[in-house]
Amino acid sequence: MTTEPKTRIGMLVFPMVTSLDILGPFEVLARASDCRVELVWKDRQPIKGDTGLAITPDRGFGDAPQYDVLVVPGGPGQTPMMEDAEVIGFLRRQAPGAGFVTSICTGSLLLAAAGLLAGRKATCHWLSIDQLALFGVEIVPERVVVDGNRITGAGVTSGLDFAFTVLAAIRGEEEAKALQLLMEYDPAPPFQSGHPRVAAPELTEKVRLMARNMLERRLEVSRRVAEAAKQG
Amino acid sequence: MTTEPKTRIGMLVFPMVTSLDILGPFEVLARASDCRVELVWKDRQPIKGDTGLAITPDRGFGDAPQYDVLVVPGGPGQTPMMEDAEVIGFLRRQAPGAGFVTSICTGSLLLAAAGLLAGRKATCHWLSIDQLALFGVEIVPERVVVDGNRITGAGVTSGLDFAFTVLAAIRGEEEAKALQLLMEYDPAPPFQSGHPRVAAPELTEKVRLMARNMLERRLEVSRRVAEAAKQG
Repeated sequence: MTTEPKTRIGMLVFPMVTSLDILGPFEVLARASDCRVELVWKDRQPIKGDTGLAITPDRGFGDAPQYDVLVVPGGPGQTPMMEDAEVIGFLRRQAPGAGFVTSICTGSLLLAAAGLLAGRKATCHWLSIDQLALFGVEIVPERVVVDGNRITGAGVTSGLDFAFTVLAAIRGEEEAKALQLLMEYDPAPPFQSGHPRVAAPELTEKVRLMARNMLERRLEVSRRVAEAAKQG
Repeated sequence: MTTEPKTRIGMLVFPMVTSLDILGPFEVLARASDCRVELVWKDRQPIKGDTGLAITPDRGFGDAPQYDVLVVPGGPGQTPMMEDAEVIGFLRRQAPGAGFVTSICTGSLLLAAAGLLAGRKATCHWLSIDQLALFGVEIVPERVVVDGNRITGAGVTSGLDFAFTVLAAIRGEEEAKALQLLMEYDPAPPFQSGHPRVAAPELTEKVRLMARNMLERRLEVSRRVAEAAKQG
């Protein structure tokens, strides 16, 4: 006999996702009490993240249940997803019935493209956060932003801070703190270079230049999707 | 024509590995310049981590090249690996030719069981760090410990701090800082509960109690392996 868990968490994956965006939070939330966490994509064929990691989805969109928490990651592969009708349709079907609609990294741009962040406070990876404005999002450049049942995290590694915030929201602080201790989440970066606020300005420019092509492609798509929504 | 990368990084995986131990560092090091990172196991059949995540190895032990950096994770599945002749054999064959022999979480116990940490400074997950003493390791309860070409990280999430330390060692600080910025590694845990040093003492006892069975099994095996090595 299978007992349904209290909380069903659905995490979107797609080709060229930044794997850590989603696997960091997966590892925290999969340890939570009375939860089932599933990776969801169009079908169950393995896809590859942007570093080549093979990720095997647990569910296809077609047989996904209504999730209580919907989690959307980012990465280079997020850009084409903004114009993918199947993906946008899945997010729009799930969002109204989900207790929490959430994202990490540029996943917030995908939520925004689906029309799910208009008028809300949200964050994003520092390189792409300005694009949220195209969708009428109130930009809050913090690590984790909570606005009602929308919870968004900043770039990639913010997924851990995000996950403990979500865990506290669905299970309480006591359980979040216990899992933080079990996972020894007591970060001590060897360098202080994780945000333009603390990094050397010339390094920030260098990274921005490295990412330029990806950012231009994303901006082009963001503009087109935002424009179509206005016509819409 | 395939060009061999300058640095080949081999990351051990095994059933019931703590996935984030290895996938956190994977995500950092797979972005490094002129590196190839591979997940290695006995064969290439997918295995499952301790939260149910499917992980697909890139290589079997039999066709693995000599790695320049060897990375060993921990988790519940690490305990039986300490007595697995194939795994111990692989580590012992690789270690002498590797520029760096490294671990995250209880992976240091596996390195110790293979005789690769005797007389060295090393760290481990706080729940299991005392077991390192059985193998003649000098315990240093820090987040990341460097002793010559041995680099060890503490529990699970220390893998990120570990990975940027390794990256700086193989590619220099400039590249480590650039990737830290790209991955927005500027942690801001919502709670201060990631280590017994900062967590509530009663919470620490609760987590220790939750992990008791796993710790007892691990201690039993650590004692047996250490004893056998002395007879040896």
